[in-house]
Amino acid sequence: MPPRAAAAPRPPAAPANPWPAPWPTPWPRSVVVVGMPGAGKTSIGRRLANRLGLPFHDADVEIEAAAGLTVSEIFARYGEAHFRDGERRVIARLLSQGPIVLATGGGAYADPRTRQAVRESGAVSLWLRCPLPTLLRRVAGRDHRPMFVDADPVEVLTRLMERRHPHYAEADIVIACADESPETTTRRVLAALSEWQPPARLPVPLPGAAPRGYDIVTGEGLLRRAGGLLAPVLPTRRVAIVSDANVAALHGETLREGLAEAGIAVAAEVTVAPGEASKNMAEVGRVMDALLAAGIERRTAVIALGGGVVGDLAGFVAAITLRGLPFVQVPTTLLAQVDSSVGGKTGVNLAAGKNLAGAFHQPLMVLADTGTLATLPPRELRAGYAEVAKHGLLHGSFWDWCEAHGAEAVAGDPAALRHAVIESCRLKSAVVAEDEREETPDGGRALLNLGHTFGHALEAECGYGGALLHGEGVAIGLGLAAMLSARLGHCAYALPERVVAHLAACGLPARIHELNRRFSAATLLARMGRDKKVREGRLRFILLNRPGDAFVADDVPAETVLTLLRDEGCGP
Amino acid sequence: MPPRAAAAPRPPAAPANPWPAPWPTPWPRSVVVVGMPGAGKTSIGRRLANRLGLPFHDADVEIEAAAGLTVSEIFARYGEAHFRDGERRVIARLLSQGPIVLATGGGAYADPRTRQAVRESGAVSLWLRCPLPTLLRRVAGRDHRPMFVDADPVEVLTRLMERRHPHYAEADIVIACADESPETTTRRVLAALSEWQPPARLPVPLPGAAPRGYDIVTGEGLLRRAGGLLAPVLPTRRVAIVSDANVAALHGETLREGLAEAGIAVAAEVTVAPGEASKNMAEVGRVMDALLAAGIERRTAVIALGGGVVGDLAGFVAAITLRGLPFVQVPTTLLAQVDSSVGGKTGVNLAAGKNLAGAFHQPLMVLADTGTLATLPPRELRAGYAEVAKHGLLHGSFWDWCEAHGAEAVAGDPAALRHAVIESCRLKSAVVAEDEREETPDGGRALLNLGHTFGHALEAECGYGGALLHGEGVAIGLGLAAMLSARLGHCAYALPERVVAHLAACGLPARIHELNRRFSAATLLARMGRDKKVREGRLRFILLNRPGDAFVADDVPAETVLTLLRDEGCGP
Repeated sequence: MPPRAAAAPRPPAAPANPWPAPWPTPWPRSVVVVGMPGAGKTSIGRRLANRLGLPFHDADVEIEAAAGLTVSEIFARYGEAHFRDGERRVIARLLSQGPIVLATGGGAYADPRTRQAVRESGAVSLWLRCPLPTLLRRVAGRDHRPMFVDADPVEVLTRLMERRHPHYAEADIVIACADESPETTTRRVLAALSEWQPPARLPVPLPGAAPRGYDIVTGEGLLRRAGGLLAPVLPTRRVAIVSDANVAALHGETLREGLAEAGIAVAAEVTVAPGEASKNMAEVGRVMDALLAAGIERRTAVIALGGGVVGDLAGFVAAITLRGLPFVQVPTTLLAQVDSSVGGKTGVNLAAGKNLAGAFHQPLMVLADTGTLATLPPRELRAGYAEVAKHGLLHGSFWDWCEAHGAEAVAGDPAALRHAVIESCRLKSAVVAEDEREETPDGGRALLNLGHTFGHALEAECGYGGALLHGEGVAIGLGLAAMLSARLGHCAYALPERVVAHLAACGLPARIHELNRRFSAATLLARMGRDKKVREGRLRFILLNRPGDAFVADDVPAETVLTLLRDEGCGP
Repeated sequence: MPPRAAAAPRPPAAPANPWPAPWPTPWPRSVVVVGMPGAGKTSIGRRLANRLGLPFHDADVEIEAAAGLTVSEIFARYGEAHFRDGERRVIARLLSQGPIVLATGGGAYADPRTRQAVRESGAVSLWLRCPLPTLLRRVAGRDHRPMFVDADPVEVLTRLMERRHPHYAEADIVIACADESPETTTRRVLAALSEWQPPARLPVPLPGAAPRGYDIVTGEGLLRRAGGLLAPVLPTRRVAIVSDANVAALHGETLREGLAEAGIAVAAEVTVAPGEASKNMAEVGRVMDALLAAGIERRTAVIALGGGVVGDLAGFVAAITLRGLPFVQVPTTLLAQVDSSVGGKTGVNLAAGKNLAGAFHQPLMVLADTGTLATLPPRELRAGYAEVAKHGLLHGSFWDWCEAHGAEAVAGDPAALRHAVIESCRLKSAVVAEDEREETPDGGRALLNLGHTFGHALEAECGYGGALLHGEGVAIGLGLAAMLSARLGHCAYALPERVVAHLAACGLPARIHELNRRFSAATLLARMGRDKKVREGRLRFILLNRPGDAFVADDVPAETVLTLLRDEGCGP
């Protein structure tokens, strides 16, 4: 039996490299190379190992060593299921022993439990994607694997590619290999590895007998990898996409390609008109009819591609079609990425008010590609930022970050935006995990309404036609909530001053009189009395003692609110 | 200290009574007498105890004995909260020591935890409801309780009645006492006691972190006691009633009176047109608008009063209004009582098919008053019976009961109907508890679709206009499912013969050719292919090995189904 390479002790440190690489050596995590026979997993893998300062292993060699049989013999004697079991165990063992480069057999990564083991090990998976002619040239005549004996290699490879490529697509990095030298491919792989940032994953645990949690996955360029990211959580590789006309034109193609890479079929694509006006029951009916006409079934997931309107509408459709379809949020606006896509609230507006028809329907995943924010109109980006500032005020130390870097996010800086999205999702998902259905009366999700009692009333007065965006209403609402807190003695007047100054620095309207119309204080108060959160007829406000210390108040005198609104420039 | 009567050993047997009473003596359960001061709790209680062969206890006397203080002294020294705590413990102790008659203080049963202790003890609670003038005459001059010192008895009693009557209403039996002798009242109480049948309670446990289970409560005359039965589970004593015009006219008044007895306010009453045509999205919107216009809030429960259409529609409205309102089913048809009200499925029809929009929304309680079945048109009663027969076939020994007594139920026999409802709910709730969201692929809720793959297709062909009732479609479907099972060799041909014979004996159409129109086998098969339960395009049938042994089959050849339908008289 050959000596088992995995058992050899790793050198205590990598030898000094006279040509220092632009990446840390030894590379701090394992790299698992997957792909078809002939893709160059072994030759590229060895080169990679050498450059990364890691040991190289070939999974098939290790399996043969462990079994004392060749792969063909194991297949012949025990069948494929048995082989895959052993293969998974060997791979998991190798990956548990410190960073290595591991070349796998062509079928390994096509096995869902092996993919899961690789994911859970923390390794980077790398797919060397080769076109058929390249593979054919490389396996012709030299490959003795049983699959090619007495068979047409074209037919064998084509069939395998169809079956396996959708699974390979779940790899973290995909390198399309043309006919090039192994050295060239290796260099391209190394470049991709050093650039690669794993998407941030925030698990959102939810209570319940079955595991109901989901991940919020955030990062650049996730749309074009959507298939690989979603495949592990979808019940079946078949989805419907709901979007609005603007977003579909900007990002639909990228999402479809990303899904196709993992063999995910798009059963239906439904677009609605952009804007709040689409959030109504008639549109719900129209989207449901379109999905059903396209033959969706109970396991077809609905993907909401767009901003808050699309997420709320498509989520509600998913909640009530066939009594509940699997659902995925792909938010493409800052507002949706930091707020509306997280938490499972879905719904549409009724004549009586906003979001009065709806359901709690948790997604299988929230996929927030921060790259899409580059296509947002600046006014929308700013409006979305109001929810970030709200999260800052609720969190405390994140408010300090907002004051220091919020303006960079609003100016479109990718790193600042990414940080704003991740920290907002972290705060909101923690709140939601504790209080999924808004049942904690004095805290929990209710605190997320900071600024919203005022904001909703202003929005309602302005008519949802785009005159005042939701986030703009929230910005003014944050200022008013801080002012009200100060007037009631809960905080110093310095806090509302800081809030207003920060929002103004981010280009957001921070005072009611900045809006180009006059409001009646009494009318706004009446609007607040019709809010969904009203209980036994009492107004509820979220007030602040300081950033990071908010509370629910349902004993604020109406007169104090009226006076504040009048002092801020409202009519009687 | 007086000797504690409760501690005295009970005589081993009641002395022989020379005038045997028309009830068992000693009476097998405790009777707890509640009511206002002056209602006669002690004088009637003593008489009752004597006639029932039970020891009599006065809770206040026992409390004073246990505390060594008078009730007034306990109030004065420790306050009411402390007194109520002790009172509840004394009452629970007395009721745990074998059947007694217990007169309680006027405030005892107004305490929710004491009511719960009485309910859980298994005692019968009895409210002696007296009008104000009677009470006044009885307490005038002779009552030394602190509440009447230096106070106007009219004012005191009126205030107490307003506060306490809604709680007294939760008593099992209510006796309206006019000015009559204690002997007369006692005789009326004894008559009520001997007639009294506790409503059957079936607990439906549901999985989840919080206790989510609910009770199905079945019996005669429950509508007029609805307030007392519902009050313990409602979040607030405020409801909205959704009904159809026919049912509202027949039973609305009784339900409203029953609710009013327990002080439950009806915030809104919405009626829809009777019939399946009301189960659509537009009607959902109309009902939601009406509820919101009436000022319902998140804790206002929606009561569905009616048959399957009302239950499905109102339940769906409750599921999606303000993202979920508490919900109560008050089914008034046999179909709703034995099937649609149990299990949490709600929804409406879309152009593409039946129940395609909907939600799982579990009720707080199902209140099935079997008395309402007396008002049902015979054809509707028969149609509802088809689901009873289905439950019989799924259960096994209940099928024997169906064959022996089903015709009595269809003829309107109250005892047979009551049994049919309870056993159907028992079977269905057990299935639902195991598989709330129809996620068990090969069993669980799916089995409840016995006869429905055929039935839904026939109904769809007939157009939901009343030409073929759902239950009639199911009846034919049961016959066809049994025939298909026999043709596929799963059971003997005797089974379909028994099924058809039984349904025919109950006045139900049992064969497709009995319907007054001709169907195309191919069209019916195509309809079945569009059923909500279709997975990856395969037809699913529930088949029978024997009564009590059903299974899901998704490998039935289309040709076998087509041949069966043609043999049963369908065209090609």
